[in-house]
Amino acid sequence: MASLLHHPLCAFSRSTRLALAECGVEAELNEEKPWEWRPEFLALNPAGTLPVLIPDDGPPIAGWYAISEWLSDTLDDRPITAFQPFPGEADARAEARRLVEWFHHKFHSEVTDYLVIEKVFRRFGPNSTSPDMDAMRAGRDNLRYHMAYIGHLTETRSWLAGDALSFADLAAAAHLSALDYIGEVPWEQFEAAKNWYALVKSRPSFRPLLLDRVAGFVPAGTYADLDF
Amino acid sequence: MASLLHHPLCAFSRSTRLALAECGVEAELNEEKPWEWRPEFLALNPAGTLPVLIPDDGPPIAGWYAISEWLSDTLDDRPITAFQPFPGEADARAEARRLVEWFHHKFHSEVTDYLVIEKVFRRFGPNSTSPDMDAMRAGRDNLRYHMAYIGHLTETRSWLAGDALSFADLAAAAHLSALDYIGEVPWEQFEAAKNWYALVKSRPSFRPLLLDRVAGFVPAGTYADLDF
Repeated sequence: MASLLHHPLCAFSRSTRLALAECGVEAELNEEKPWEWRPEFLALNPAGTLPVLIPDDGPPIAGWYAISEWLSDTLDDRPITAFQPFPGEADARAEARRLVEWFHHKFHSEVTDYLVIEKVFRRFGPNSTSPDMDAMRAGRDNLRYHMAYIGHLTETRSWLAGDALSFADLAAAAHLSALDYIGEVPWEQFEAAKNWYALVKSRPSFRPLLLDRVAGFVPAGTYADLDF
Repeated sequence: MASLLHHPLCAFSRSTRLALAECGVEAELNEEKPWEWRPEFLALNPAGTLPVLIPDDGPPIAGWYAISEWLSDTLDDRPITAFQPFPGEADARAEARRLVEWFHHKFHSEVTDYLVIEKVFRRFGPNSTSPDMDAMRAGRDNLRYHMAYIGHLTETRSWLAGDALSFADLAAAAHLSALDYIGEVPWEQFEAAKNWYALVKSRPSFRPLLLDRVAGFVPAGTYADLDF
């Protein structure tokens, strides 16, 4: 079986776990603490980042970008699934990728980085420090704008990038689910984004994420509820 | 003809210009100053980032990620060129993408962001400030490690990702060329990286980049020399 080096609260890892499950690729999960700089881990991915997929055969594949595109490139090697990471013609695929970059870069640096890094990852590692409250405030402010953008997209589309579920939905949901774990998503104020998230959250691929637990962090009340 | 919104010292734009030229896609260049937040620009790419490709027909394509993959997806729609952004089988394509992420994210945040942003982009916009010398020192230190990594890759490979030129080479060369413009690359200390860069720099696709001039910034002495 393939295996995936991941961390439960790493949004990049979460999006990749969802994509693997939607593509019907079973992978054993191995938790990695990238801040420990384990030499065996750095040998697999010198960038020291998560996730890293070790397929049944073939070399390791490092990072959400290479893995999601590899899942797309190898669709024909597997039993057919309804899901394609980048469905449709070239223009539709470009729109899905634009939104993947939106969530895995813009959203990450404007929201996840501030909130998850400050609230969770600062506690780990040799230089454990308290959260920076200014950073957390900036992350919360920025999140509101992104929630509104998700709502705006779903006004005219079934899924974020168009008519079909794509890796863009999984990337967005991965970040929101990490934030939801630490109770940082103001769902009630963003009805359209909440309705879209409820659809992703209820997919079978999402179930394992709802069972994630991180030592020292109890998930927020409705984290695992499909009716939240 | 297609057109590309770009900035001469934006490494993401530079890598895209190289990829368009290698793929035989002619595009008119339109300089954009993203810090001006021009409404017509934000309508094309709400993320406010460069580059944005406006193809002959079809919707705009925003960002190096969506554009480079779109060039790969539409190879069959154009006359054959020797260049493919992600050549080879799925594993080889994954390796090229790992390295694209390396340069467009890791290198960007560890080097380009510190040096080009501090030395050039801080001067623009409403809040013009002087360079932060600590940031510049960090960028210069980090650059040495990346130069060594390029040398390490080319020890066993013809190009960064393998036997063929790929978008990984163009991404890496794009960052180095922006740094070279401002005289920040210690070529003499990194012979292997220099030899690889000389190969990319001498390609016809590179010529327009060597003619780039940014108001207020004279390029460093050997910026445009193929024998540097």
